[in-house]
Amino acid sequence: MIRIAVDGMGGDNGPAVVVEGAVQAANDFEHLEILLVGPTDILKAELNRHKVLGGKITIVEAPEVVGMGESPVAALKKKKNSSIKISIDLLHKKEVDAAISAGNTGAMVAASTLTLGMLPGVKRPGIAITIPTMHGMCCTLDVGANLNPSAFELFQYAIMADVFARNIIRKKRPSIGLLNIGEEESKGTEVLKEAYKLIRDSSLNFIGNIEGRDFFTGKADCIICDGFVGNVCLKMIESILETMISMISREIRKNPISSIGAWFLQPALANLRRDTNYEEAGGAPLLGVNGNVIIAHGISSARAIRNGIRVASELVTTQANNQIVEAIAPYLHQIAAPRNSQAAA
Amino acid sequence: MIRIAVDGMGGDNGPAVVVEGAVQAANDFEHLEILLVGPTDILKAELNRHKVLGGKITIVEAPEVVGMGESPVAALKKKKNSSIKISIDLLHKKEVDAAISAGNTGAMVAASTLTLGMLPGVKRPGIAITIPTMHGMCCTLDVGANLNPSAFELFQYAIMADVFARNIIRKKRPSIGLLNIGEEESKGTEVLKEAYKLIRDSSLNFIGNIEGRDFFTGKADCIICDGFVGNVCLKMIESILETMISMISREIRKNPISSIGAWFLQPALANLRRDTNYEEAGGAPLLGVNGNVIIAHGISSARAIRNGIRVASELVTTQANNQIVEAIAPYLHQIAAPRNSQAAA
Repeated sequence: MIRIAVDGMGGDNGPAVVVEGAVQAANDFEHLEILLVGPTDILKAELNRHKVLGGKITIVEAPEVVGMGESPVAALKKKKNSSIKISIDLLHKKEVDAAISAGNTGAMVAASTLTLGMLPGVKRPGIAITIPTMHGMCCTLDVGANLNPSAFELFQYAIMADVFARNIIRKKRPSIGLLNIGEEESKGTEVLKEAYKLIRDSSLNFIGNIEGRDFFTGKADCIICDGFVGNVCLKMIESILETMISMISREIRKNPISSIGAWFLQPALANLRRDTNYEEAGGAPLLGVNGNVIIAHGISSARAIRNGIRVASELVTTQANNQIVEAIAPYLHQIAAPRNSQAAA
Repeated sequence: MIRIAVDGMGGDNGPAVVVEGAVQAANDFEHLEILLVGPTDILKAELNRHKVLGGKITIVEAPEVVGMGESPVAALKKKKNSSIKISIDLLHKKEVDAAISAGNTGAMVAASTLTLGMLPGVKRPGIAITIPTMHGMCCTLDVGANLNPSAFELFQYAIMADVFARNIIRKKRPSIGLLNIGEEESKGTEVLKEAYKLIRDSSLNFIGNIEGRDFFTGKADCIICDGFVGNVCLKMIESILETMISMISREIRKNPISSIGAWFLQPALANLRRDTNYEEAGGAPLLGVNGNVIIAHGISSARAIRNGIRVASELVTTQANNQIVEAIAPYLHQIAAPRNSQAAA
């Protein structure tokens, strides 16, 4: 039995959608026990609208909620009994094996980092998302937890992305690309040049620097970048399909022949919408913290919550965190060197 | 008469394409005199294949060429008579009013910065590109000249982008957005928080932070960012249309009904390809240097070169650089303050 804490109050769509997603997961995966965390009365009312046929769902009381726009650290200080904090506390006390929230991302990162601490040897956590490409899914790390990573932190992201890609998106020997402004080793900032060397000299399947144009081609199974550029790219990608469909629709309206075509094209566009939908990935693991934590998209649908719970259970069964600790250990003696050389640069 | 130096040897497609573009510009814009810079024999042979009906084209000898992959500063030192260096020298000696090259971007930036110097008060140059959105063109600055701008440099980019958008993409009072990972003023790095305040407190039409999803919506007429994230986004955008068409085509092949639609859709996709094509923008001004410099895309077609020459002549006629100097002057007393506060952060 795998036990997963689900923040019942997280996300833009409220508890109705989260509870529906939890019920879907419980019904689809019998080996799960889901602990819905939040105000008991609200969650009970939602739960009563569904039939739980498979796994088990119980409610854990958490009277407070961190709002989506609240300052993470201030909110966590003020609201000791928020659904986010209590979910992470359950994980810390090992009463669950994983925790997931579609709520305030910053609060989830802060609560996880402060309460769970880091995996042995890991310097900073990173949010790993999967992006659909022309050749399957691609893992991008980090997309928002660490805006100014050091070279060694980027190197650790490469190690963690490799573990994630092998276990969750099932790539045998994932190719690792470092996001940069050119392919040559000499490109980019001093931090990137140093990170390039660290990844190149490791046992990872490093394919060198990749550029913005390589996001969709599937050139790399894992894209390593700082959390700022990763976050901007992620949001751009999320908006692309809708923008392209709007632009195509506008062109179509200008041209009567094209408008005939558009009608026939509907099924293809519907498939494309599905394939490029964040719902299937379900949630982004917060890698590096000492516990299995999934950050779901704020606009998560019930289907996305269900899939996020699935990814959480896969992190548990594959023991991804143990693999990260093992993979990082051989390189820990390098920490001092790159940090000093950066400071001197 | 406006005189423009065109690097005859720049770009992936060689002198044939550059010369063809120069001829198109000369024929379309009678007020131009184009100085083709490069090895005389090669350029003369290419020029003989065309009829110059409108403006005037002359050749200026430059026996050396900087390769696309060469290290910029080393190449400029070694090759004193490269087509890039001589083009910029012509501009420095005021023998031309503007210079354009589709060659090595780094060499063009270095030659311009070292030979021409900066406009009075401007700290660092920035490359400004125009991106098609749902509501017209949008200016993004910087896309690769400055990977780690200070807050004050970002503020100067906002001022320069405003001048560019008013004069070249003809927006009356351009809206300015600062690229960040969230809309709130408290988001992002210390540099971005400081830049936010500087732009907000200026007379610019600042609409606050914008996110990756806002690139295509036309939410801002100008997007201000560091050269690293700008470069990654630019390359992603360039690859998007082809990727989307490939993905749509693949979906279509799976479904016979959609394939009927695809045939009818061709004209709409062709229009979309044209509208999102870098060719129409033609080239990216290197703003901030003391002279009108245009950096054209390495893969420029003849049409793109022709349009780059058009943008160069518009920089000259609108006296954009004079406007930049005037717009920046009132804020020069602020330079000391933000730099100190950054160092303390």
